[in-house]
Amino acid sequence: MKLGMIGLGRMGANMAQRLLRGGHAVVGFDPRAEARAALQEQGAETADSLAALLAKLAPPRVLWLMVPAGEITDTTLEALLPLLQVGDTLVDGGNSRYLDSQRRAATFVEHGIEYVDCGTSGGVWGLAEGYSLMIGGAEAAVERLRPLFECLAPAPGRGWGRVGPVGAGHFAKMIHNGIEYGLMQAYAEGFSILHHKQEFDLDLQQLAEIWSHGSVVHSWLLELTAKALAEHPDMHDIAPYVADSGEGRWTVDEAIALGVPAPVITHALIARLRSRDAESFADRLLAALRNQFGGHEVRKG
Amino acid sequence: MKLGMIGLGRMGANMAQRLLRGGHAVVGFDPRAEARAALQEQGAETADSLAALLAKLAPPRVLWLMVPAGEITDTTLEALLPLLQVGDTLVDGGNSRYLDSQRRAATFVEHGIEYVDCGTSGGVWGLAEGYSLMIGGAEAAVERLRPLFECLAPAPGRGWGRVGPVGAGHFAKMIHNGIEYGLMQAYAEGFSILHHKQEFDLDLQQLAEIWSHGSVVHSWLLELTAKALAEHPDMHDIAPYVADSGEGRWTVDEAIALGVPAPVITHALIARLRSRDAESFADRLLAALRNQFGGHEVRKG
Amino acid sequence: MKLGMIGLGRMGANMAQRLLRGGHAVVGFDPRAEARAALQEQGAETADSLAALLAKLAPPRVLWLMVPAGEITDTTLEALLPLLQVGDTLVDGGNSRYLDSQRRAATFVEHGIEYVDCGTSGGVWGLAEGYSLMIGGAEAAVERLRPLFECLAPAPGRGWGRVGPVGAGHFAKMIHNGIEYGLMQAYAEGFSILHHKQEFDLDLQQLAEIWSHGSVVHSWLLELTAKALAEHPDMHDIAPYVADSGEGRWTVDEAIALGVPAPVITHALIARLRSRDAESFADRLLAALRNQFGGHEVRKG
Amino acid sequence: MKLGMIGLGRMGANMAQRLLRGGHAVVGFDPRAEARAALQEQGAETADSLAALLAKLAPPRVLWLMVPAGEITDTTLEALLPLLQVGDTLVDGGNSRYLDSQRRAATFVEHGIEYVDCGTSGGVWGLAEGYSLMIGGAEAAVERLRPLFECLAPAPGRGWGRVGPVGAGHFAKMIHNGIEYGLMQAYAEGFSILHHKQEFDLDLQQLAEIWSHGSVVHSWLLELTAKALAEHPDMHDIAPYVADSGEGRWTVDEAIALGVPAPVITHALIARLRSRDAESFADRLLAALRNQFGGHEVRKG
Repeated sequence: MKLGMIGLGRMGANMAQRLLRGGHAVVGFDPRAEARAALQEQGAETADSLAALLAKLAPPRVLWLMVPAGEITDTTLEALLPLLQVGDTLVDGGNSRYLDSQRRAATFVEHGIEYVDCGTSGGVWGLAEGYSLMIGGAEAAVERLRPLFECLAPAPGRGWGRVGPVGAGHFAKMIHNGIEYGLMQAYAEGFSILHHKQEFDLDLQQLAEIWSHGSVVHSWLLELTAKALAEHPDMHDIAPYVADSGEGRWTVDEAIALGVPAPVITHALIARLRSRDAESFADRLLAALRNQFGGHEVRKG
Repeated sequence: MKLGMIGLGRMGANMAQRLLRGGHAVVGFDPRAEARAALQEQGAETADSLAALLAKLAPPRVLWLMVPAGEITDTTLEALLPLLQVGDTLVDGGNSRYLDSQRRAATFVEHGIEYVDCGTSGGVWGLAEGYSLMIGGAEAAVERLRPLFECLAPAPGRGWGRVGPVGAGHFAKMIHNGIEYGLMQAYAEGFSILHHKQEFDLDLQQLAEIWSHGSVVHSWLLELTAKALAEHPDMHDIAPYVADSGEGRWTVDEAIALGVPAPVITHALIARLRSRDAESFADRLLAALRNQFGGHEVRKG
Repeated sequence: MKLGMIGLGRMGANMAQRLLRGGHAVVGFDPRAEARAALQEQGAETADSLAALLAKLAPPRVLWLMVPAGEITDTTLEALLPLLQVGDTLVDGGNSRYLDSQRRAATFVEHGIEYVDCGTSGGVWGLAEGYSLMIGGAEAAVERLRPLFECLAPAPGRGWGRVGPVGAGHFAKMIHNGIEYGLMQAYAEGFSILHHKQEFDLDLQQLAEIWSHGSVVHSWLLELTAKALAEHPDMHDIAPYVADSGEGRWTVDEAIALGVPAPVITHALIARLRSRDAESFADRLLAALRNQFGGHEVRKG
Repeated sequence: MKLGMIGLGRMGANMAQRLLRGGHAVVGFDPRAEARAALQEQGAETADSLAALLAKLAPPRVLWLMVPAGEITDTTLEALLPLLQVGDTLVDGGNSRYLDSQRRAATFVEHGIEYVDCGTSGGVWGLAEGYSLMIGGAEAAVERLRPLFECLAPAPGRGWGRVGPVGAGHFAKMIHNGIEYGLMQAYAEGFSILHHKQEFDLDLQQLAEIWSHGSVVHSWLLELTAKALAEHPDMHDIAPYVADSGEGRWTVDEAIALGVPAPVITHALIARLRSRDAESFADRLLAALRNQFGGHEVRKG
């Protein structure tokens, strides 16, 4: 089928390409001319404005949004709303907060436009291996898009599904990312212990590879860990600075709101905050306090 | 090649069977007659004493220990030592603490007996899919056992390796299990949040299956989570009581000794302790304290 | 000076009484007749409606709100707004979220009414020992109320202060409570370890009292711990169920928003969530997972 | 009464001085001549060897050890043992691990020498304000030393007590320090959040002082926090490097061994480890992993 892909960044461009390879027709929009040109080379049509994009699609249209979560999603949706018609379908495939998706969907559905939130996992590997898709929205709307989901997923019958009404897709993706934080931190801690055990002079990449076959901890993230260790054996060229992009925070927030203890996911987030806290005011105060009561020496700042 | 397998419990029996299927000759020992009989049906010889076992093997012999970590390992090793000869090789495939393995190896090596510690992962699935093996010991000793490792691993060239001198194998297995604790807790927390989000009435098994294809969190543990959720959709038939078997504690201990912050692995262990702390003295005291300063109501115990 | 106290619950009634003892004139309002009657016995005037309360005060009036944080604060403020005059001062002494105080203050200040947010600590002991007051608001407004703060605090020159503009008072109180969570949990864990060390048969109350004199951990909370242990030596009559009232959650939220790692305050909150998580879905899933990969026995739920 | 004080460092010298002021006779030993000279000026006798020290005390003698925990305690005790007589009493007032105290006591008691372990808190403030003393040992031995305890404590009837048999004193001190870690971390986190809330430009010292009167979080550590903030308002002259001296680790170890969940005390320790983990291997690996799956940018190391 034919769809409009809005946002041709790393994720949007790859998904458009996978759809093209699957025989679908894609019209791509992105404000950056080079992003449009790159997609055209893959065989897509492109448009240099939302209006132009819509003009190239026959109603009922399918618009797939792959833009960064937050303000730009709202701006784009506001620009789209007056251009859409009853029966059109909008898919938000980005990392929106589920509460935002529910709010936005209410507006669109009021205007007779279907709204589908599609949590998307797979990163830069999705193009080749397929994406994992957690979909929220009306059953009929999701069903109508089936050919797209079957194409984007690793296989037609696997790795995608409608998990509930609008909001459920992004809710599931949020928790997915919260789990991801916890998994990553568990591996990072384990390999850090191995790295510090100088007595054994362990080969970390070798261990990641051994564990990748037959062990209880084998996973895709572990395979990527092996790759990362192959490229950066001692990691000295990588700064110990870990960004976080929102879903981890929202997961912590949701856990607290629901009264669910989630210490590991929460600490995985805190470890990232700590990686960026260069000033470490708390640690300075602790050192000063030890000096106050015990006369313990402090290091000069 | 031919080896003696000492300990025919869940792990030892399966490993013996995989070796038999691979064309190796196994003499099995276990004090329980039914365990011996079961292995005999698979085509192995058995022996009803350590002495009998050794008599069925021609020097230089290979003895593979699969008994529970701790006292019984020491008892068995003490019984074996006088029965062994220079050139024999002892493999401890159990979950021994690496410090114990180093201590034991020192004694055996002094007597001219090779000592190999082999961390073994794979659980009940290892029989069919192969085991992940982290091996510590002298290079020649490990090399001599290559046919066994190639047979036990998922494939001859994958999932096993000599990772260092004696102790390194069990050290690596210890950290493996520490990571395992963290991974399991991350999944458990994520699914617990999903479970409590009644608004979406999510199908947890469906989510585990969607994520198992193409998502960043896909792993073997996630596939097992899907299976567990299929068998126990609401988990009401499973008590919230989580055992721990030592490696998690040792990992925490090691991290502290090395000065490595490992909050997530540590909290995964603490969560297990908490699952078994039915009395919850700390929580009672907290409730009593809130009452003391704020007059907040307490629930009767 | 004369003021109107709105809300005669545990905190409001005690504060009114302390002000009366300090020679101030108090008009109290509470919808519950028995609360009004109790205050009248202490020498206060009372009123059975907000309008009646305001009628008993000459402009410029001082109104002090001591009602539970949340909706009832908004309802009361909405009812008050049309009744107030330019020059009146409103003090919110409750546990409002600082963001709410900033929002509310904007409305009142627009109408020429001063708004002061006063974080109040001291609990049921404040009546006798004085309250700790963290005050946000315009300097002149805070200065005008000085006699009240000097009376409510433990001493005229101690335990109170203007800490910044509107919002700063409740912000400081929020962090105060976050710290309180952490302190309480630290004591609770320590005493729990002592309690479980059966080998020494320790007298927990004795230890709390020894530590209350000269030790590094001596504090008011420790003295209350000694009292709690005197009243409930083994805590069996107190349920292990710990409520939380909002400030802890907000502190965690704020720490994350500011990028400040606060693992201990955060975990003190999580421990409270855990105390109320009777179902423990995560622990059930962990037990089920251990069974899946390792064949480990599970307890029946 | 008369006693020998072995070890005239910060703690030993101050305790000797407090005993002198209380009318007791002290013979001090320390290998450093300047430490002995300083004590002599306070009115004590001194000795330049253990043998000389013992010669200046009439049996049954009281020897009080204030040396750093660990090897030096063992060395000193080994040197003392042959010099002591039946009926002498040895007090270990240092921060020994309770298991060591139990082991050492067994040896001394076998030789008819009383052994008392005395956990000592109070730091550099103990000289002026008295020490908090948690004492383990035989009842008669402890009773005999009563005049010393009454003098060292803040007041004769407060701040000291026999808490159990040998080992119980150091056990209690260990937990005391574990709690101390948790309390310090809670304050440090709270003040770090306050410090980062630039919107309010809060005066941290002022807040510490307000809270020190009447608030739920008032404590001695909070008063020291106010002092530390007065001396180092922005803490820039103090390095964010926090040492730990053993008791925190032992507390974590003990909690795990007893199956007591102690997340806050544990995390307070982990935060100290983190303050010293300049390399941050785990964070580097996390950044590398994010790049692997999501193509997220990494900072150069």
